[in-house]
Amino acid sequence: MIQNDYYSQDVHGPFQLISIGALALEEGGTIPDCRLAVATHGTLNARRDNAILVPTWYSGTSKIIEQVYIGPDHALDPSRYFIVQINQIGNGLSTSPHNSDGDIAMARFPRVRIGDDVRAQQRLLAQHFGIERLELVVGGSMGAQQTWEWAVRFPDRVKRAAPIAGTAKNTEHDLLFAETLVEAITSDPAFRDGAYANSADVIAGLRRHAKLWTVMGWSVDFFREDRHRALGFESVADFVERFMIGYFGPMDPNDLLCMAWKWQRGDVSRHAGGDLAAALGRIRAKMTVMPISHDMFFPPEDCRREQQLVAGSELRVLDSIDGHFALLGTDPAMVAQVDEHLKALLAAPVD
Amino acid sequence: MIQNDYYSQDVHGPFQLISIGALALEEGGTIPDCRLAVATHGTLNARRDNAILVPTWYSGTSKIIEQVYIGPDHALDPSRYFIVQINQIGNGLSTSPHNSDGDIAMARFPRVRIGDDVRAQQRLLAQHFGIERLELVVGGSMGAQQTWEWAVRFPDRVKRAAPIAGTAKNTEHDLLFAETLVEAITSDPAFRDGAYANSADVIAGLRRHAKLWTVMGWSVDFFREDRHRALGFESVADFVERFMIGYFGPMDPNDLLCMAWKWQRGDVSRHAGGDLAAALGRIRAKMTVMPISHDMFFPPEDCRREQQLVAGSELRVLDSIDGHFALLGTDPAMVAQVDEHLKALLAAPVD
Repeated sequence: MIQNDYYSQDVHGPFQLISIGALALEEGGTIPDCRLAVATHGTLNARRDNAILVPTWYSGTSKIIEQVYIGPDHALDPSRYFIVQINQIGNGLSTSPHNSDGDIAMARFPRVRIGDDVRAQQRLLAQHFGIERLELVVGGSMGAQQTWEWAVRFPDRVKRAAPIAGTAKNTEHDLLFAETLVEAITSDPAFRDGAYANSADVIAGLRRHAKLWTVMGWSVDFFREDRHRALGFESVADFVERFMIGYFGPMDPNDLLCMAWKWQRGDVSRHAGGDLAAALGRIRAKMTVMPISHDMFFPPEDCRREQQLVAGSELRVLDSIDGHFALLGTDPAMVAQVDEHLKALLAAPVD
Repeated sequence: MIQNDYYSQDVHGPFQLISIGALALEEGGTIPDCRLAVATHGTLNARRDNAILVPTWYSGTSKIIEQVYIGPDHALDPSRYFIVQINQIGNGLSTSPHNSDGDIAMARFPRVRIGDDVRAQQRLLAQHFGIERLELVVGGSMGAQQTWEWAVRFPDRVKRAAPIAGTAKNTEHDLLFAETLVEAITSDPAFRDGAYANSADVIAGLRRHAKLWTVMGWSVDFFREDRHRALGFESVADFVERFMIGYFGPMDPNDLLCMAWKWQRGDVSRHAGGDLAAALGRIRAKMTVMPISHDMFFPPEDCRREQQLVAGSELRVLDSIDGHFALLGTDPAMVAQVDEHLKALLAAPVD
């Protein structure tokens, strides 16, 4: 365990740390005491049927999703729904390399898959809240991967699902992009194969990681249209320094690598021997699939192909030149589109 | 100077090394004996008015352009035209960091701009061949940057110009992408600030550089449609290893960095105090601007905006999911489009 004040209640709270006990992992190994950081909004009704699950994306925590998407003016309205945000394993708030000790500390942390997260979340919802079926699962990016996994793995527990800017089966191009992110960090000699004493030692690698995200995370159009200036930055260099490195710089390298490994291997076809169509055929949830128009690595066409394999699903392309990182809430018009589509999905009758 | 057999006549020849003497550089400094590697095809006619200039792209040499675009079946037909390919400064064949000695050897090589290349090329064409006006300048990527520079800097010397997949003024996004390429190399401890003894020492950095190119150089569609498999590779990993690292791995790091610095700063608006419209207004050449439909970093929209500032020019978007690297000739249908548009341009009357 190493100290990192970034992952504190001050920055990301309030959240509860809830233990689900030992979690045996798909790749082998176990997290002996798996604690998930949970933030809830609203009240679970007596029938326990108004729960919405919101998993988190790479590098993100429940906090930013709460700030952008949850509130009385949004589809995710705490006055109507009991909204449960569960931070993914490895994200720095839940059990993660940097906050673990002993056999699973730091670089010894075991490989975790999207499926492990989803099983852990299901156990937590059932044991801690008595929730057996979800009104909606909605998440962006790696949150979308978890949403897809929920819909395929637990078809009877998910009434509605909305994966935003993410795929059911990761593409080879995306896997390679994530590999470049990983290598930006691991190539820093100060990374020391994960045995650094302080995450700040690895700042050179974290800076390169942030720059790669700048190239692919937004879009060419974003910079052409001076969106970075509209967001208050003087130049791309200023945007890289204050926004991107400001965002990624304080994070823990081993935590990021844990999430990246998981992201690269997101693939619901594992439930059907590699047959994606068969896996997606298991889905019983009413689904709205929402890629972002200018996403450079989870582009609409990749999402459309998966959506067409899900009976009764709908594709709603979110229009934003902010690209993938529109998820961060930089484009209020896109957040409004998300709300519109989620409201329609929540209003749709399901079995 | 260090030995690197990749840059040999065996691999890239035949080419002539022609000295243009000392070249004073825009950023200060001088290349004392600037030698340009030149490959010619066809015969200069008596009026010296059938010459076509083809500059080179980042990492490329005249050889691959010859193999893909020059021949009796192409618009660049040596039976009609005298085609002069001039390798850019720093590309490993012409005067470059790795093949220089003394004050300009390796990391001491001075900063070179696109404008320096174009002045050097003009001097060579005039002094060595007696060519004062070009029937056509055509180039891809950094070759397009040089084509734009020719048309703006020497409006009376260029009858026709065809920049392919490149811009007159580099974008901020593109500058950042190139910065990540640079840092992939310079972050390798074996780079030793450019003082490595052998380029193979820097293979870790060169491998990362090749992977970044894989992510951005082709397109998401390229991999989705299994174009890498159609080209004979078993997987993306195999494609990265044998094609991309096979291609970039033998190159000299300092040479790549010299070209990258130049690429990042390509900007014809320097001729008009930063006013791009004014700079492009100088152009008298008949122009056909050809972006590639799926280019991830020189996208059609960036090229369209520049093209619209050039009176009488035409935009012809080349359709290929191979993205920027379709330039390498992987998509014969795109090469055919280039030929079609170049033939039309060469057939068009000019003043």
